[in-house]
Amino acid sequence: MSSTVLILPGDGIGPEVMAQVRRLLDHLGGFDVREDLVGGAAYDAHGTPLTDETMAEAMAVDAVLLGAVGGPKWDTLPFADKPERGLLRLRKDMALFANLRPALVFDALAEASTLKTDLVRGLDIMIVRELTGGVYFGDPRGIEDLPNGERRGINTQVYTTHEIVRVARVAFDLARKRDSRVCSVEKANVMESGLLWREEVQALGDAEYNDVALSHMYADNCAMQLVRNPKQFDVIVTDNLFGDLLSDCAAMLTGSLGMLPSASLGAADAAGRRKALYEPVHGSAPDIAGQDKANPMACILSLSMMLRYSFDRGAEADLIEAACQDVLNAGIRTGDIVAPGMTPVGTRAMGDAVLAAM
Amino acid sequence: MSSTVLILPGDGIGPEVMAQVRRLLDHLGGFDVREDLVGGAAYDAHGTPLTDETMAEAMAVDAVLLGAVGGPKWDTLPFADKPERGLLRLRKDMALFANLRPALVFDALAEASTLKTDLVRGLDIMIVRELTGGVYFGDPRGIEDLPNGERRGINTQVYTTHEIVRVARVAFDLARKRDSRVCSVEKANVMESGLLWREEVQALGDAEYNDVALSHMYADNCAMQLVRNPKQFDVIVTDNLFGDLLSDCAAMLTGSLGMLPSASLGAADAAGRRKALYEPVHGSAPDIAGQDKANPMACILSLSMMLRYSFDRGAEADLIEAACQDVLNAGIRTGDIVAPGMTPVGTRAMGDAVLAAM
Ligand SMILES: CC(C)[C@H](C(=O)O)[C@@H](O)C(=O)O
Ligand SMILES: CC(C)[C@H](C(=O)O)[C@@H](O)C(=O)O
Repeated sequence: MSSTVLILPGDGIGPEVMAQVRRLLDHLGGFDVREDLVGGAAYDAHGTPLTDETMAEAMAVDAVLLGAVGGPKWDTLPFADKPERGLLRLRKDMALFANLRPALVFDALAEASTLKTDLVRGLDIMIVRELTGGVYFGDPRGIEDLPNGERRGINTQVYTTHEIVRVARVAFDLARKRDSRVCSVEKANVMESGLLWREEVQALGDAEYNDVALSHMYADNCAMQLVRNPKQFDVIVTDNLFGDLLSDCAAMLTGSLGMLPSASLGAADAAGRRKALYEPVHGSAPDIAGQDKANPMACILSLSMMLRYSFDRGAEADLIEAACQDVLNAGIRTGDIVAPGMTPVGTRAMGDAVLAAM
Repeated sequence: MSSTVLILPGDGIGPEVMAQVRRLLDHLGGFDVREDLVGGAAYDAHGTPLTDETMAEAMAVDAVLLGAVGGPKWDTLPFADKPERGLLRLRKDMALFANLRPALVFDALAEASTLKTDLVRGLDIMIVRELTGGVYFGDPRGIEDLPNGERRGINTQVYTTHEIVRVARVAFDLARKRDSRVCSVEKANVMESGLLWREEVQALGDAEYNDVALSHMYADNCAMQLVRNPKQFDVIVTDNLFGDLLSDCAAMLTGSLGMLPSASLGAADAAGRRKALYEPVHGSAPDIAGQDKANPMACILSLSMMLRYSFDRGAEADLIEAACQDVLNAGIRTGDIVAPGMTPVGTRAMGDAVLAAM
């Protein structure tokens, strides 16, 4: 039986970068690939950022590959219709609680960082962001009219023991395969939910991961430390909202956002299979959409994460990663990572180069 | 009648840096200065991070100068006793809703940034952080036991029209005296409270500040843009929690956290006076406390902000700022900003140098 993959290119540069991934998938073979709409594209076609049919498909396949969602065109839509709701529903309904966001500096691109090169050369952080809880999904929420004519906006940050422990476990397990260090990040000095987070992560570490060095850091300090000395981190585990900001900050430190993939994983079933969605860290970049300018590497490397985590096809994942390295070393660059002396290419030509290198 | 100032040195390096400020205050003259405890120091003496008496004093004086609070010694205290609660109570009870955090690169220190020098030379951002609302103070909050033996931690993010408009007004007014650009930051794509924030700031801009260029940015993107190209910003206005992370990130970009002051302001009364608290952006740095190593400049520049905002003594504020510049240009540096060829000095010698330069 072949592996089933649902491709959701989404908005902006999503379709262009995903087109290159499709070529690679066809090249690799053995996949039953379906394609569907999400985000603004789904709203334009169906009046909703994710149809129930697409949601059902996502639940049925072995893995989902997503491009990007959102854009100014849909910025004024009511809250429930925004492109982002499509992505958030996928995360929630598939119960993808662990979002793995590597912040990795490719040797060939160390100069591309806005940070001084020494501080980032060889950087390799793994941020594990909780993805189905916290203020993103907590109730009560909404905007209400007050008797005095004002309005009040409410969201609820909420975490249970269970939610904290399962994502912390993912971080500890990953750390064991890396440098065995986990830094857990919250605002335990200000928020009770953060204090609970700290206590539960510490208890899990004490009980089951004595071989992993666990530290705790306030989120504001973490934002600082990422800029001051990013190489101090191995694995960072944090909640949905802090993870959103800190992983983007860390990604930007690498200087090559167009290179960074991510994986969102659910719980393992009896057979060890996890529901999973893979997507580039970058957004839909509407300003360059449709111009053959976008860097497809982040999306291509998301495919490689998929091969590794969802299909146990690690050799092919290695092959893709090596091909990307070769292409970079050969000086072939899209606009976002081009530098003097390099060969500037477009999205499709970058896809050609990766395919050729494989 | 002389101006009344309450000094709260707090914990860690707080007392050392504040000692230098005291010398400057005495030198300037015209102040009736009281001193009291806050944070861990208050807890150790009185079993609470802020006594009602100190709170009453803070309400009575014209301005409060605070050093820093917190440290590992008090990390395991129950939530309500933590040093931070003292600072948070001051902010809340004095209704200091607008926290002004400049991120400024001093010419003499542009090399100190971890960012490439070109990207930060001349950087001058003003972050206006909402300080008495949002998830820091929202109810319900706390940790509860669930019937299944788990625990649940809850905090509430809540903002009303009124709270948003008054802090946005501070940002717009500041922008008018600067480059007339305000960037308002939230997660309107994910949080209804952020959507309300965006709508209310836009409505105020449309109604009263057509001369100020207003833009909106998601908080994750802002964390990225600060690292990518910080000079794109003039004034940033954001909520309490995002402001906590983003202002620390911006501060660290300058490479000289030990140089950055902040002001927290309340509403103006009929006579145009505002309750105000001034404090350095840096923390209590327990690792170097009591060793005459801390940089007193952030605290000294907080005094200068106090002279300007609370006492209309702008000429003296200018004098202090010029003296700090002179000292830096003369190569006199505490450990945090020292560089080859400079003269390393301690906390007290730095105070001497600033006094001499005045
Ligand atoms: C598009 C948006 C809903 C999303 C988020 O806030 O989680 C994005 O910023 C991300 O980090 O994947
Ligand atoms: C000490 C702490 C309560 C405080 C905060 O979170 O606001 C600090 O980080 C700050 O930014 O002033």
